[in-house]
Amino acid sequence: MIVIPLIERKRDGGALSREEWRSVILAYARDEVPDYQMAALLMAVLFNGLAPHELGALTDAMVESGASLSFAADTPPRVDKHSTGGVGDKVSLVLAPLVASVGLAVPMISGRGLGHTGGTLDKLQSIPGFRVDLSLSQAREQVERLGVALIGQTGEIAPADRKLYALRDATATVDAIPLMAASIMSKKLAEGLNALVLDIKTGSGAFLPELDDGLELAETMVRLGHERGCPTLALLTAMDRPLGVACGNALEVREAIDTLRGAGPADLREVTLQLATEMVVLANGADDRPSARTALAEALDGGRALERFRQLVEAQGGDPRVLDHPTQLPQARVVEPVRSPVSGYVVTVHPRSIGQTVVGLGGGRQTMVDEIDPAVGVEVHVKPGDAVGAATPLATIHASSADAAAVARRALEDAIVVGPEPGPPPLPLVSHRVTVGGVERVA
Amino acid sequence: MIVIPLIERKRDGGALSREEWRSVILAYARDEVPDYQMAALLMAVLFNGLAPHELGALTDAMVESGASLSFAADTPPRVDKHSTGGVGDKVSLVLAPLVASVGLAVPMISGRGLGHTGGTLDKLQSIPGFRVDLSLSQAREQVERLGVALIGQTGEIAPADRKLYALRDATATVDAIPLMAASIMSKKLAEGLNALVLDIKTGSGAFLPELDDGLELAETMVRLGHERGCPTLALLTAMDRPLGVACGNALEVREAIDTLRGAGPADLREVTLQLATEMVVLANGADDRPSARTALAEALDGGRALERFRQLVEAQGGDPRVLDHPTQLPQARVVEPVRSPVSGYVVTVHPRSIGQTVVGLGGGRQTMVDEIDPAVGVEVHVKPGDAVGAATPLATIHASSADAAAVARRALEDAIVVGPEPGPPPLPLVSHRVTVGGVERVA
Repeated sequence: MIVIPLIERKRDGGALSREEWRSVILAYARDEVPDYQMAALLMAVLFNGLAPHELGALTDAMVESGASLSFAADTPPRVDKHSTGGVGDKVSLVLAPLVASVGLAVPMISGRGLGHTGGTLDKLQSIPGFRVDLSLSQAREQVERLGVALIGQTGEIAPADRKLYALRDATATVDAIPLMAASIMSKKLAEGLNALVLDIKTGSGAFLPELDDGLELAETMVRLGHERGCPTLALLTAMDRPLGVACGNALEVREAIDTLRGAGPADLREVTLQLATEMVVLANGADDRPSARTALAEALDGGRALERFRQLVEAQGGDPRVLDHPTQLPQARVVEPVRSPVSGYVVTVHPRSIGQTVVGLGGGRQTMVDEIDPAVGVEVHVKPGDAVGAATPLATIHASSADAAAVARRALEDAIVVGPEPGPPPLPLVSHRVTVGGVERVA
Repeated sequence: MIVIPLIERKRDGGALSREEWRSVILAYARDEVPDYQMAALLMAVLFNGLAPHELGALTDAMVESGASLSFAADTPPRVDKHSTGGVGDKVSLVLAPLVASVGLAVPMISGRGLGHTGGTLDKLQSIPGFRVDLSLSQAREQVERLGVALIGQTGEIAPADRKLYALRDATATVDAIPLMAASIMSKKLAEGLNALVLDIKTGSGAFLPELDDGLELAETMVRLGHERGCPTLALLTAMDRPLGVACGNALEVREAIDTLRGAGPADLREVTLQLATEMVVLANGADDRPSARTALAEALDGGRALERFRQLVEAQGGDPRVLDHPTQLPQARVVEPVRSPVSGYVVTVHPRSIGQTVVGLGGGRQTMVDEIDPAVGVEVHVKPGDAVGAATPLATIHASSADAAAVARRALEDAIVVGPEPGPPPLPLVSHRVTVGGVERVA
């Protein structure tokens, strides 16, 4: 494979053909293109971007490098959600069984936490016995039978993306929006979906904090999905503060169960219902959002969503008693409140700092080989704009030791800012809706 | 060595510190930084350039990665010339003994031909027995004794540059002017020079055909040399047609010998005298160019330069009889003229096509492992603007077979364009002089 002329063309602002992208990506996956040439090509893409046909070809080649899921003809429409990741974002745990409970199929492949954001797989594994390492054929069978599976990325799906992602991580080429879009979409398109909804976080705790970047990523992925025959839609949601209350693996499972029971924090329920409504409408192709939302709310409030989650936990080897007895989840040894030092208003709850505090407690990873402690974390009881009195509990620390709790306390005193006046208004919970037709401001 | 933050900073338009460049280059030379990270960093440099302190630090680190020449206190001032390479450019063969013959020391490290341009080492090796693989200490001893050595790049000099150059060649990052400047200057600065003159070719046969690019490279290297205590000056010279008549290794040695004897093509003699004059003036620090030129012309016309070349050939194991009996040089089996098909004017002599014709005859390399035939080549007897009659000899082919000659003939019929009117005027032989004080138009 002669790669130098392709690097030169991309470097000089030109475009590669579909077949050139296909060849170079498949050759790279077969170890026939050296990492240093791919690194140079990726850096040139970071500077010069990708034309639409290149982005499609790159995505298709990454899908082609591995296996794709396909389902029996009588399987309900498949739909999934992807989030760019945030702090306290346990939406998938609620959403997947919820959407399955209203008759759709959700073959969800999730990731692990890294840096300040958590990962769905880590959260699920705080349920004793829960297995996420299903093969693709086991996942397919479970989706056909139960309407939902929550698994980890297997080596079978998009191996070219896996290899490219590791290279991007080592060469400072992660932050290129077209490369991010192709990476995410290649894994999702391999799930054999009929529809896809994206949750693009925006604000200081998001991977892309700037609204413009979030919108660009959303528009890029929505277009990419549609062109590949998978109707795709994105909501931009707030990550200028944590979502819900719980931040930490077992704590978030407990909050997800509360929400599946019709309770739980209002912001978590609302984001979940809006994403689920879009999934139902997009997968069924019937534009009746009010009735979809009503059905979904009833599934939460009437117990059908929780029941589907129970079946999911049982199917994947987890202990279903945690649903009724949350104390069966791992419990931290030290549980301490953090109280407001003064009366006033909550100005900011810095999501990055909260996430880093959870990592510091042992509940997240700095590198992919770190072990995590599922029991630890932080509950944040306040939102920006809340009025608080002196000694109002702002947060609760769940730590493995008094020393760790003391470190977390100091971090939280900086992360949760209380002042004499409210700060600027926080971001709307859901701010924009991006469809193939364009961007619509929601709030 | 943590490289990712350095790549990120360069990618985002920032600069690395001197110590960061030193660390990353020396670590790369020790194989402690992977090629893929260096490739990403180089591509980011290609897009964002290097600040002056970065360029200096990169150059210094490449020098530091290897050995440098140093000379006995009573050695005359050392001076060298570097050319960016052209077709028919045998200047070094004349210049090195010429400048040594007027009392300076020339420790010249040269390269091999690649692509359409020839290389000094290949030309020298068409002299039976001539050895270019002297060690640095042998070269130093010869320069101290004889005032001149012409050797190949040893593994001792700037090994970081050697490794980086191979990576740049494989990742389409050769064309970055700061990287070119650092690569050239690191090798020259390791020669322990007191002065350096650069011959920057411009025009269609040059590595950088555009005048602006040539000027940028010249100014960059002149500044770099001065900042490192090595007074440096550049002449921009024409490469819109071949230099001299002979193109091909043994043919060029013969032409160099003619020129050392006071004969030879006028353009070759003139460029050599202008470069030599700058070398003498810059190395001696005395701004008397007319008297320097007079002394140099006398050394050519009076035989001193040729005598120094004879000593050089003997010292490096070559057969000195070739100086008096050029038929001792390798001779091609087939020698044929190419005649003008019509009367008119020479419009163009495409140097790249001439160079590629020589490669096609076996006189150059497409890859560094190709063997070359020293005997073959092309003599081009005309220059753009010359009036020619029907059947005037335009060129002479020196080939190893009639078949090879026939292929070369077809190529030459395209490479040497004769038309009813002269074309636009060719570039001035020497067009610009670049000193640390600025750019001066010469012609």
